[in-house]
Amino acid sequence: MDDIRFAVLGTGGIGRRTLEVSQHKDGLTAVAACDRNGVAIDHDGLDVDELLAATEGNIASGPEDGVPDDDVATDGGAAAAKADGVKQHGEEAGIIASEQGKPTETPIDDIIDESDAIDAVLLALPNLEHDFIPRVAERFAEADYEGVMIDVLKRSRVIGMLDAREETLKESGITFVCGAGATPGFLTGAAALAAQSFVEVEEVEIWWGVGLKSGYEDNRGTVREDIAHLDGYDIETAREMSEAEIEALIDEHDGVLEFHDMEHADDVLLERAGICDAEDVHVGGVLDVRSDEKPTTTTVSVTGTTFDGETGTNTFELDDVTSMEANVNGPALGYLKAGVRNNRAGHYGVFGPADLMPGF
Amino acid sequence: MDDIRFAVLGTGGIGRRTLEVSQHKDGLTAVAACDRNGVAIDHDGLDVDELLAATEGNIASGPEDGVPDDDVATDGGAAAAKADGVKQHGEEAGIIASEQGKPTETPIDDIIDESDAIDAVLLALPNLEHDFIPRVAERFAEADYEGVMIDVLKRSRVIGMLDAREETLKESGITFVCGAGATPGFLTGAAALAAQSFVEVEEVEIWWGVGLKSGYEDNRGTVREDIAHLDGYDIETAREMSEAEIEALIDEHDGVLEFHDMEHADDVLLERAGICDAEDVHVGGVLDVRSDEKPTTTTVSVTGTTFDGETGTNTFELDDVTSMEANVNGPALGYLKAGVRNNRAGHYGVFGPADLMPGF
Repeated sequence: MDDIRFAVLGTGGIGRRTLEVSQHKDGLTAVAACDRNGVAIDHDGLDVDELLAATEGNIASGPEDGVPDDDVATDGGAAAAKADGVKQHGEEAGIIASEQGKPTETPIDDIIDESDAIDAVLLALPNLEHDFIPRVAERFAEADYEGVMIDVLKRSRVIGMLDAREETLKESGITFVCGAGATPGFLTGAAALAAQSFVEVEEVEIWWGVGLKSGYEDNRGTVREDIAHLDGYDIETAREMSEAEIEALIDEHDGVLEFHDMEHADDVLLERAGICDAEDVHVGGVLDVRSDEKPTTTTVSVTGTTFDGETGTNTFELDDVTSMEANVNGPALGYLKAGVRNNRAGHYGVFGPADLMPGF
Repeated sequence: MDDIRFAVLGTGGIGRRTLEVSQHKDGLTAVAACDRNGVAIDHDGLDVDELLAATEGNIASGPEDGVPDDDVATDGGAAAAKADGVKQHGEEAGIIASEQGKPTETPIDDIIDESDAIDAVLLALPNLEHDFIPRVAERFAEADYEGVMIDVLKRSRVIGMLDAREETLKESGITFVCGAGATPGFLTGAAALAAQSFVEVEEVEIWWGVGLKSGYEDNRGTVREDIAHLDGYDIETAREMSEAEIEALIDEHDGVLEFHDMEHADDVLLERAGICDAEDVHVGGVLDVRSDEKPTTTTVSVTGTTFDGETGTNTFELDDVTSMEANVNGPALGYLKAGVRNNRAGHYGVFGPADLMPGF
């Protein structure tokens, strides 16, 4: 496969780590990145080390930063970067601290302007406003972008919003790969594979552990998105919480948040790939923001019945030392490559991780 | 995807169980099957239940049955069926005991004659003579077959023999999926997936357990092929063993054979997919022919280093209650479907299971 030139929207924890991991993968060249304040574009390839060094540590989250503005669809992406938890330390914050960065009021539009020379766009943006990523996709489609878009979104309902835009995406020539991080993403693919012993899948249980002490500052947007899954919270209440309220909530739980029956797109992504019914998929996990040790082992358990009538459970376990970042960004870039192969073969529309599996 | 019409060459344990499992899969219609003595072809779909009932129990293995004749390439496949351990109980044995079967001296040629109406051919034949499957592929190519061929072969060296014929296969329009059973196959795909946490894979360990008491009679060809992996044995010596010698060997081990550092194609199949070096893949396992309980849990362990410098091991475990047949035939039919999608997209040549994964 020819070299893939890709862009990253958002330079919070996931965006920056994706740039870093891409340096370990063959055939991937980062050519563009943006955050709220700025954009860096070099079609010969960004100097990723310089960009990471410049943005590392000058990113944080303020109370207002987790909240996309209402005018997000028209502000050229400023709120997008804002939603990713990029704290502004004056004029020099974020990507413009890099010598490759330049300030802009319209970072996403700036990338769209250059998208003829971009094979794939990774949306490393939390999706608190749940039609936000679908609307970004629409903007690329309106500009007749032909290529791959890929996100690491979590919410089941977003898949339907993307599906509703599928014709627009197809007309433009976009292959949109959705939910392609760790879960959904890596673990969705694992569930699709583990199901192959069975002729009928009864239940898929995805249980994740994340220890995020050293990554906490960079991943406040993700943590806020997780809080929306807690009992008594939803997307709106989580979005409106102040940073102090989030800290109080975390204190109350001694830094450890446990989640059950999360609205995670693994369910619809497995159903659309024909693996099982969405209602038979259960996702939960434990997040510890005060330790880098995982509070529980990330496990996918697939229970089903074999053709010869036995009921059993196949399991996939990630080593506790593998970080959330490793498990998001490796698979995300992998699915991106799979997306590019599909795009070049003329397969446009909306694809989930399990759709990119062999399709057993 | 439109309906897939497929044929099975060989009606030993794997062939018959594949026919059975296919009834649980959407979009698959068995239209042809053959063994040493006969062939059954119905382009509207075989009556699989009748075929299974008729062949069940009239298949066994005699000392001579595990040995393909030297004239295998010219005998129309009689030796192929023979190699699959089909014992002849006179004229009425095997597939011709079915009301759908008819006797033939040239079963494989008979299927080739009908191959215009066949989308995929599953070679459920042990591969004791190690160029046997590549030679069968060549015969289909000589007849200008356009479609999928898929096998469940085990030996690493066979992949090279298929690669050596790749141009011939491509010219014909054949998508050949090799090593697509349990291991290699299911577990190769699992290793490719489990590797996604890592930027560098250090070791892949595949360890399988098979309890084969009730399936022993049907799978003597497979057992003989496994024996060839034992210390002090090779393909030639295993092929030449009498049935009594095999029984004596099994007695000596109380029915439990343990294998280490097997020549299993997982190694070259993972290397060709870019997951790791072949030499870093180790395959072993335990076969118990006197119990249906697995003597050990089938596990894939992938050890690697993450982008952030941690070394860990991800694992994939099959439930002990899932039989060898469930783990071979579900994935084999799944990879067959993936092969058909590739074939219809014009992708010809030789593919391994990991090549059909997303290609991370």
